[in-house]
Amino acid sequence: MTKIKVGVAGYGVIGQRLADGVALQEDMELIGVADVAPTLSIQALFEKGMPYDLYTADPGKKHLLTDAGIPVSGTLEELIGKVDIMLDSSPGGIGAKNKEIYVKNNVKAVFQGGEKNEVADIFFHGYANYEKGIGADYLKLTSCNTTGLIRTIDAIDREFGVEKVAMTIIRRVADPGDYHRGLTNALMVDKAPSHQAVDLMTIMPHINATGILVHTPVTHGHIITPIVSTKNKISKDDLLEMFRKHPRIRVVKLADGFLGNASLFKYARDLGNPRGDMYEVAVWEESIVKSGDDIMFAINIPQESVVIPESIDAIRAAMKMQMTREEGTEATNRYLGMKA
Amino acid sequence: MTKIKVGVAGYGVIGQRLADGVALQEDMELIGVADVAPTLSIQALFEKGMPYDLYTADPGKKHLLTDAGIPVSGTLEELIGKVDIMLDSSPGGIGAKNKEIYVKNNVKAVFQGGEKNEVADIFFHGYANYEKGIGADYLKLTSCNTTGLIRTIDAIDREFGVEKVAMTIIRRVADPGDYHRGLTNALMVDKAPSHQAVDLMTIMPHINATGILVHTPVTHGHIITPIVSTKNKISKDDLLEMFRKHPRIRVVKLADGFLGNASLFKYARDLGNPRGDMYEVAVWEESIVKSGDDIMFAINIPQESVVIPESIDAIRAAMKMQMTREEGTEATNRYLGMKA
Amino acid sequence: MTKIKVGVAGYGVIGQRLADGVALQEDMELIGVADVAPTLSIQALFEKGMPYDLYTADPGKKHLLTDAGIPVSGTLEELIGKVDIMLDSSPGGIGAKNKEIYVKNNVKAVFQGGEKNEVADIFFHGYANYEKGIGADYLKLTSCNTTGLIRTIDAIDREFGVEKVAMTIIRRVADPGDYHRGLTNALMVDKAPSHQAVDLMTIMPHINATGILVHTPVTHGHIITPIVSTKNKISKDDLLEMFRKHPRIRVVKLADGFLGNASLFKYARDLGNPRGDMYEVAVWEESIVKSGDDIMFAINIPQESVVIPESIDAIRAAMKMQMTREEGTEATNRYLGMKA
Amino acid sequence: MTKIKVGVAGYGVIGQRLADGVALQEDMELIGVADVAPTLSIQALFEKGMPYDLYTADPGKKHLLTDAGIPVSGTLEELIGKVDIMLDSSPGGIGAKNKEIYVKNNVKAVFQGGEKNEVADIFFHGYANYEKGIGADYLKLTSCNTTGLIRTIDAIDREFGVEKVAMTIIRRVADPGDYHRGLTNALMVDKAPSHQAVDLMTIMPHINATGILVHTPVTHGHIITPIVSTKNKISKDDLLEMFRKHPRIRVVKLADGFLGNASLFKYARDLGNPRGDMYEVAVWEESIVKSGDDIMFAINIPQESVVIPESIDAIRAAMKMQMTREEGTEATNRYLGMKA
Repeated sequence: MTKIKVGVAGYGVIGQRLADGVALQEDMELIGVADVAPTLSIQALFEKGMPYDLYTADPGKKHLLTDAGIPVSGTLEELIGKVDIMLDSSPGGIGAKNKEIYVKNNVKAVFQGGEKNEVADIFFHGYANYEKGIGADYLKLTSCNTTGLIRTIDAIDREFGVEKVAMTIIRRVADPGDYHRGLTNALMVDKAPSHQAVDLMTIMPHINATGILVHTPVTHGHIITPIVSTKNKISKDDLLEMFRKHPRIRVVKLADGFLGNASLFKYARDLGNPRGDMYEVAVWEESIVKSGDDIMFAINIPQESVVIPESIDAIRAAMKMQMTREEGTEATNRYLGMKA
Repeated sequence: MTKIKVGVAGYGVIGQRLADGVALQEDMELIGVADVAPTLSIQALFEKGMPYDLYTADPGKKHLLTDAGIPVSGTLEELIGKVDIMLDSSPGGIGAKNKEIYVKNNVKAVFQGGEKNEVADIFFHGYANYEKGIGADYLKLTSCNTTGLIRTIDAIDREFGVEKVAMTIIRRVADPGDYHRGLTNALMVDKAPSHQAVDLMTIMPHINATGILVHTPVTHGHIITPIVSTKNKISKDDLLEMFRKHPRIRVVKLADGFLGNASLFKYARDLGNPRGDMYEVAVWEESIVKSGDDIMFAINIPQESVVIPESIDAIRAAMKMQMTREEGTEATNRYLGMKA
Repeated sequence: MTKIKVGVAGYGVIGQRLADGVALQEDMELIGVADVAPTLSIQALFEKGMPYDLYTADPGKKHLLTDAGIPVSGTLEELIGKVDIMLDSSPGGIGAKNKEIYVKNNVKAVFQGGEKNEVADIFFHGYANYEKGIGADYLKLTSCNTTGLIRTIDAIDREFGVEKVAMTIIRRVADPGDYHRGLTNALMVDKAPSHQAVDLMTIMPHINATGILVHTPVTHGHIITPIVSTKNKISKDDLLEMFRKHPRIRVVKLADGFLGNASLFKYARDLGNPRGDMYEVAVWEESIVKSGDDIMFAINIPQESVVIPESIDAIRAAMKMQMTREEGTEATNRYLGMKA
Repeated sequence: MTKIKVGVAGYGVIGQRLADGVALQEDMELIGVADVAPTLSIQALFEKGMPYDLYTADPGKKHLLTDAGIPVSGTLEELIGKVDIMLDSSPGGIGAKNKEIYVKNNVKAVFQGGEKNEVADIFFHGYANYEKGIGADYLKLTSCNTTGLIRTIDAIDREFGVEKVAMTIIRRVADPGDYHRGLTNALMVDKAPSHQAVDLMTIMPHINATGILVHTPVTHGHIITPIVSTKNKISKDDLLEMFRKHPRIRVVKLADGFLGNASLFKYARDLGNPRGDMYEVAVWEESIVKSGDDIMFAINIPQESVVIPESIDAIRAAMKMQMTREEGTEATNRYLGMKA
């Protein structure tokens, strides 16, 4: 089997997790990663002994890396020359600039949520519209909140038909170790509707979605509370059964000690998952309530790692590795060690 | 005019604000307040020169106060002997014990949300069910979240007919200066439905309500995001117009700098309001969205002070000072300096 | 008695408190305040009925205020034309620009800690170097941390002779309602020595000072823990006695319920102080320990209001209202309602 | 080589890290761990496939585990019967009860900082007093702050002679995922001197130590700022050189992006360390300052994992596996993968 050759541009919070995720896929080969400066993540890569080759994303600033003693294997363009597809997790806006090099080199790319939709031909989610990504050249992933949310909404939609979603997004304001985006003793309200609702409607145009987003001063996971109106009647047990068998949804219980977003982070650390990451979103069993015919529940979104599986799905679709969502997502899940 | 004589049991976060609020009512007379120990609030009362007479709520522990040099005017029972009605804001459960003394002394009382419903004959909200409180002997106020929420739901209900409410409550976990109920870098999920939804249905039994509550590590105001289904069509402009004329609702704008719950606290401080308190709940104009025919918005609840107006309404109803909600709430608002 | 005419440039966190403080001085007259935009503080000034006249600090942007319905009494330069001295609490760097207008109009000014030292002839502290400010044209106040710290160090120095101070500054990272300078679940370390140590040595050149500053995600007061080496032996009781009689130092006890910085904020709110402000720094009695011959203790700095008294002292010195520190600070304290 | 057989009582935050650390020692064998209930850590152990055998710490409550489907290999006493030494990381106070079983079974034990000193014959630190632990039956480890602090003080003491330490401890108030010990928007001051200073003097009786402890609402690492008086002159470069070669101290730089305690947690996650743990304390290069002849610096203490190496040292001493601190700590470090 020829392995699909993959490069990663931007070795930050998302990029290093993309690299790790790709490295686990037995039908893919991670050729290298690209970044500009010796950030903590790059310093850690170096201390680990450079398990991934590093390319400079800005040849004019190669000295930033070499001065810090970090070995550089070449330039971003050289990396691009060696791969079939790039995962671009550069800071917002840089991906659009990188795209020019991808196009010039005739290399496909998957962008992250920080880029504008125009950067890509397809706004992609592994479960909701895998087929649209098949053979596409440029795909953009949904953002972390939307990726996790759509897993649940898509699952409900396929079995019960979703007509409407109104949600509250209780957003973690920064990742652990991020000193630049803090918030102290305040809840901050965004202009409604939130972009996550708009994005959901772009991916799933038959659904009417809206939502209010509130930023909170925590770092371990967003919590979303959607209220979902379905075409066919749905019970709490229906929802539980459906979510329990979903490979990327984990049903947890307050009664078991999963008291909030920090419990899931703690649990993933105790599991020994690298970085304390978790690919699954979680739904609290005791949060599920009916509101008339509608159903409401609380989802935990592990913002640092949740988009990794769907990003890998995007490679599978773009490279025509699997031609159906079932086969594509199943392969990703298997190599990531998630439940079948 | 004979003034109604009022006493306050429990001079804590709520109690001291009740006392201040009653003291502003020109048709009421604050006879005194009762507490047990020289808490910071009692020390501050002393440093201010004892504007209110203090009675010991536990005669056996009078020395706790006198040893600290705090003058004590008598016992709780002596205070009760001098008043027409008590506002009881003792810690949860103590109110039920105090009630025995109220009954023995034939004195009416208004309890706060921390007591069980059974303590009172009427579960009361000034705007939603003033008439039920008229002449009642024992009333219990809705809790802070429910009090604020009902202001908005009751207003919608009277003009458009509310059928259903599904809400997310983003709860501040502790008050400023509270070291006993903290939460650090975590969002905590409660078992659904939240008690606020249940309480709303008790006060407004024709409405179907449910909700999910999430605790957040902040101190300046709860934020609730209800989604409301109405009998008659309601627009964003309808809602704004209605809320703008409501004396206990303040419409604010993100564009004006009201970015979240802490902005309202800051604004109330800058207004010179004692303690930085605000009696009104706030609704963010830019948070209002339609979800199909439903309407959704974000409310700020200033948890320390929001129940003061409705508690004073309860005195008016119980003592038959005004016989309609319009007259009762109007009097409270006028003396509290709120808009007409 | 002719009152000294005072204007305030910059009606932000510090500016509005300066205005309130000056308004309380019976030998001063607050002519007006200047700002640029309808911030929350300006909106609150308007809702209060404009107790202070407002001047636009940027005539070209006067419409920002008038479009919001805020009455404008003229320009900053017009305000300057009516006063004897300006208190400049503009954002850092703006004061230096404003100084050109002050010089042109031959008006004295007192700048805040955000400006560079070069803006002023004298780096000023009411207790430590009042005499140096007498008759000066341009003075700069020490920053909030340094102002509070110097109160304690100066007091010790006058009675026991201070040789050396090494301190840890546990800094609150933002004020309540500040959404721009947050920090979430992190302690952030600054390059040592901290500027507060350097500033202390500028004001008190005979002392050797150094320190480490750590930012913490809270809003209610810095805590400083200096270790002080004295020429003459000092005991815990000496320190307590000295601090207890200092008008701008409040000795508090953990045993009384003052558990940390938030307790002092709560207490000031309960006292009914406008905005919950406190002019005094606090020292915890149970924090005082000896380290060999040195003495160590913990100070609470109410960052929003602590510089107000010393800023008013600066007016007194610059305008030669009182010719000694004892008389100058005593007058300020009396009008601010602090203990004699 | 016969391996030393080790059991762990209490599989909580510390216990699971002790178990992992022992499992890495090639001259030790982890026989099993004991706990009472299916906590998140135990659930994670189960989801990982029970890499360690689990024993019930309370035979009467074995059903708590078996009802949750967790396999139980026996009772705590049965575990004790199979081992040479126990690491007891039970909740504070339980260790003292367990000791009775250890004594009855003639098994040695190492207790954690939550137990009272009386539980043990020796209050132990791998670097400071290894020799005192040799052959001892019952040892108690210093707590997390003291363990990390002593690493630095002991290093200075051996080369320069430490006479006096005065420190500020900026304490993280809870671990990630701990919902029971929170603090929200407050700094909390403890009665001085802090127990860490007292403990340091117990371990190193020739040093005069004191300190003030302030709790802060964060979860990723304590920061201590000791001021150290030495017998022989010490420079910043001396300190750096000494700390750089210490296997359990990591010198980091603000300039490299290590901005605070959360940066070290992020870095350890990026390194791929299980749970994002780090055994080393960190010292910020740019925090080091001289205060006269004294030296001051800032240390980061990773509270969850810092005591693991010294706890394993304690096994080595108690079991006479190595007879000097150099050999003992070197063996621990090597198996834990720390620098030589």
